[in-house]
Amino acid sequence: MSDRAGVYIGVDIGGTKVMAATVSDDGTVGPIARRSTPGRRVEVSLVEDALTEAIEEAATGRPIAGVGIAAAGFVDAEGERVMFAPHLPWRDDPTRSRLEARWRVPVALDNDANCAARAEVALGAAQDASDVLLVTMGTGIGGAVVLGGTLLRGRNGMAGEFGHMQVVPDGRGCECGGEGCWEQYSSGNALVRYARGRMWHESFVGTTLLEELTDGDPDLLTGPLVTTAAERGDRLALQAFDEIGEWLGIGIANLVAAFDPELVVVGGGVSAAGDLLLGPARVALRQSLVGAEHRFIPPIRRAHFGPEAGVVGAAALARSVS
Amino acid sequence: MSDRAGVYIGVDIGGTKVMAATVSDDGTVGPIARRSTPGRRVEVSLVEDALTEAIEEAATGRPIAGVGIAAAGFVDAEGERVMFAPHLPWRDDPTRSRLEARWRVPVALDNDANCAARAEVALGAAQDASDVLLVTMGTGIGGAVVLGGTLLRGRNGMAGEFGHMQVVPDGRGCECGGEGCWEQYSSGNALVRYARGRMWHESFVGTTLLEELTDGDPDLLTGPLVTTAAERGDRLALQAFDEIGEWLGIGIANLVAAFDPELVVVGGGVSAAGDLLLGPARVALRQSLVGAEHRFIPPIRRAHFGPEAGVVGAAALARSVS
Repeated sequence: MSDRAGVYIGVDIGGTKVMAATVSDDGTVGPIARRSTPGRRVEVSLVEDALTEAIEEAATGRPIAGVGIAAAGFVDAEGERVMFAPHLPWRDDPTRSRLEARWRVPVALDNDANCAARAEVALGAAQDASDVLLVTMGTGIGGAVVLGGTLLRGRNGMAGEFGHMQVVPDGRGCECGGEGCWEQYSSGNALVRYARGRMWHESFVGTTLLEELTDGDPDLLTGPLVTTAAERGDRLALQAFDEIGEWLGIGIANLVAAFDPELVVVGGGVSAAGDLLLGPARVALRQSLVGAEHRFIPPIRRAHFGPEAGVVGAAALARSVS
Repeated sequence: MSDRAGVYIGVDIGGTKVMAATVSDDGTVGPIARRSTPGRRVEVSLVEDALTEAIEEAATGRPIAGVGIAAAGFVDAEGERVMFAPHLPWRDDPTRSRLEARWRVPVALDNDANCAARAEVALGAAQDASDVLLVTMGTGIGGAVVLGGTLLRGRNGMAGEFGHMQVVPDGRGCECGGEGCWEQYSSGNALVRYARGRMWHESFVGTTLLEELTDGDPDLLTGPLVTTAAERGDRLALQAFDEIGEWLGIGIANLVAAFDPELVVVGGGVSAAGDLLLGPARVALRQSLVGAEHRFIPPIRRAHFGPEAGVVGAAALARSVS
């Protein structure tokens, strides 16, 4: 390691698991230590025990120069507190300072989408850009905004909550309590919902790979299975990607009208499908964007980092503040 | 005037008229010189003649320290060129440098919504805020974004084109070529369309003030007449404001999800209706905004400046760069 004072460790704490690893300054990720997330109804100390175990495993006895934490939740604008996290017990909790006191190393904190954006800007698909929107497509849609090379945090630290922008009046109900949220039409959940709803349609029954891949049980359908089928040319799976890809492009057109960025990066699990998803999105962006004929239209690029984006970005954050 | 080297003049060039006036550093606006806008099919020099006459009238022989121009069109990110203006002859035109050469005084250029935002931040409703969205409601919807006290320009200088974010799939056709644009549901045009469409509905005929105000001719209905009727308690006019106010709040909720600002300022002609418009918008923002119970919800304030916002902001721009 080139770091003088020890290793930098990135930690990603999501709804189901904790991942931690050393990350070198060129983005090389060490062996990943994993723990299960203890859940949101447990004592906060149990979550912190899991984090502590994970970083100790990742450090393998080397001195630690800093730890960055990417949290699946709302982090305040100062990077001090986790205000709310649907799958974790933190509620308006001074997470950063308490972990720093416990571990006696510098700790930095941000939400997972912001950390993924840091990874893409520092070492990934957005290295050449300073005004970037990141859209993460997983179960839902997350997002982050980089302007002039700096992350936009917002008054509450909640900038970039793209998934809950309303795209359909009185549309599909959303877990957030709203209706017609973007992520109800373009996300991993939307992909599976679309494909599942048509598996037994007369034009697909007996012909779609999805039947084979799920042993005929639509409840077993997952996003990765739809991706597999689409990659093999399955018509229903391709239609499902066309559907969520078009909605992705429409939502991106709205964001581009507001932010006018130079680049849009799409990450998250669903982005593994690459151009199956991004192709239809690019067409829809061009069709939907105001003044398309009078402007530079930002490219839509697939993120460089996959599941390790949060770890890499969290470590980059720790390095940048130390 | 306290300015050592002469007066600062703000010019607003819109689709139908040019306004110019001196603006002192405390925002006091001198007598306004007006000219008609020559139109978009004429020689560029005719437009510049009109601008020249207007600033000479405004200066009344005093030395000019700088001129700021607020243009109703797309201005590039550097503030050098008017890329396109629907009602003016400039097309990818080096407007700023040519006028500076002609007038031999420092000239600064920006689009009208950005200038209005400068006015509100420097001297108006947003003086106490650094992260602000400005939504201007006139014939359509314009907008501007201030982050960290600085205007967001965007890659093309087109950030803040809020009016053409799609809020209804396959919705009302828009002049931009799109469908379902926000300004089709919340704007001066939308207000008039709503009221006009219901003037002869059985529940209003013979009872609405709008009949009286238009001598029974719906074609004579204007936004200011709907405002007048609403201020006098007319039920149809109030319904029309509820309708566009609710849509205003829904669109603002989308913007707040993305930007998380500390303040939203609503300007433009329709904002003269004040709380008739902003009341329903505030309710809809609270109902539509993701995580409303876990966050600070930005206030929606009426802009301080009316029709002179562009002039004041353009002069503030000229002062800031000189």
